[in-house]
Amino acid sequence: MKRSSVGHMQCSIARSLDIVGEWWTPLIMRDVFRGMRRFEEIQGSLGIGRAVLSDRLGTLVEAGLLERRPYQDNPVRYEYRLTDMGRDFSSVLISLKQWGDRWLAEEDGPPVTLIHERCGHEVEPILTCSHCHEPILPTEIRSPGRLGADPDDL
Amino acid sequence: MKRSSVGHMQCSIARSLDIVGEWWTPLIMRDVFRGMRRFEEIQGSLGIGRAVLSDRLGTLVEAGLLERRPYQDNPVRYEYRLTDMGRDFSSVLISLKQWGDRWLAEEDGPPVTLIHERCGHEVEPILTCSHCHEPILPTEIRSPGRLGADPDDL
Repeated sequence: MKRSSVGHMQCSIARSLDIVGEWWTPLIMRDVFRGMRRFEEIQGSLGIGRAVLSDRLGTLVEAGLLERRPYQDNPVRYEYRLTDMGRDFSSVLISLKQWGDRWLAEEDGPPVTLIHERCGHEVEPILTCSHCHEPILPTEIRSPGRLGADPDDL
Repeated sequence: MKRSSVGHMQCSIARSLDIVGEWWTPLIMRDVFRGMRRFEEIQGSLGIGRAVLSDRLGTLVEAGLLERRPYQDNPVRYEYRLTDMGRDFSSVLISLKQWGDRWLAEEDGPPVTLIHERCGHEVEPILTCSHCHEPILPTEIRSPGRLGADPDDL
């Protein structure tokens, strides 16, 4: 079922979802970040139909998150590599992972641990402001189209 | 069309998408963060069918991101409020917004500007490590199930 597009909305979240909001798409990106580059690897990881995977990979290539490169001639075969735009999507996946770790983990803790190589500690990201370097709290964001928790909600 | 669940996967991203991966759901959360609490407000904002919105709100309440509270008696009417779990989802929306601002904005720039009230500057979040306080770069993350760009990709 092809749903109507929300990409025309004057909203970066809607435009992003227009590309990556199909359910499988963030999981495909997750697998590419894990080092999977070939159709069969991703298909095996996700247990997804070939037609669906082919369609989603095509969307990601067309949108510019992945690049399709030949890795073999005769017959020519392709693999998928992250572009700068795709690599920049890691912050979305890491934020989604952290939220899931925090709220959806089972008794034995989060299923996958990530290590921040620079310091050797487990990745526990904090969204900080590039100007004041303080954490960005949902109650401290304001805008004409506000994306922050209403103080009355607290 | 109800797709098969990915919530059973041993992956916090998959579990998160099982709740919030339906296309409209992050936009519903966006609207609640903007201060919309009532069914009609959200419906008017998104132009979404009543049945779909009712279903998605039900999922968000059941999963614990929103709370349904009466705001009027006789007849009783309800509004939707963020829970702690829902409020914590702001980091995912902000990351998604920033990615869209960076890669999908049109010539006149990002459609919505957010202000970090603490310092008065525009919100430009950086994902930093809670241990070493340095930015978390996609190439500096390692794990058995790696979620970081392969250095060979760079």
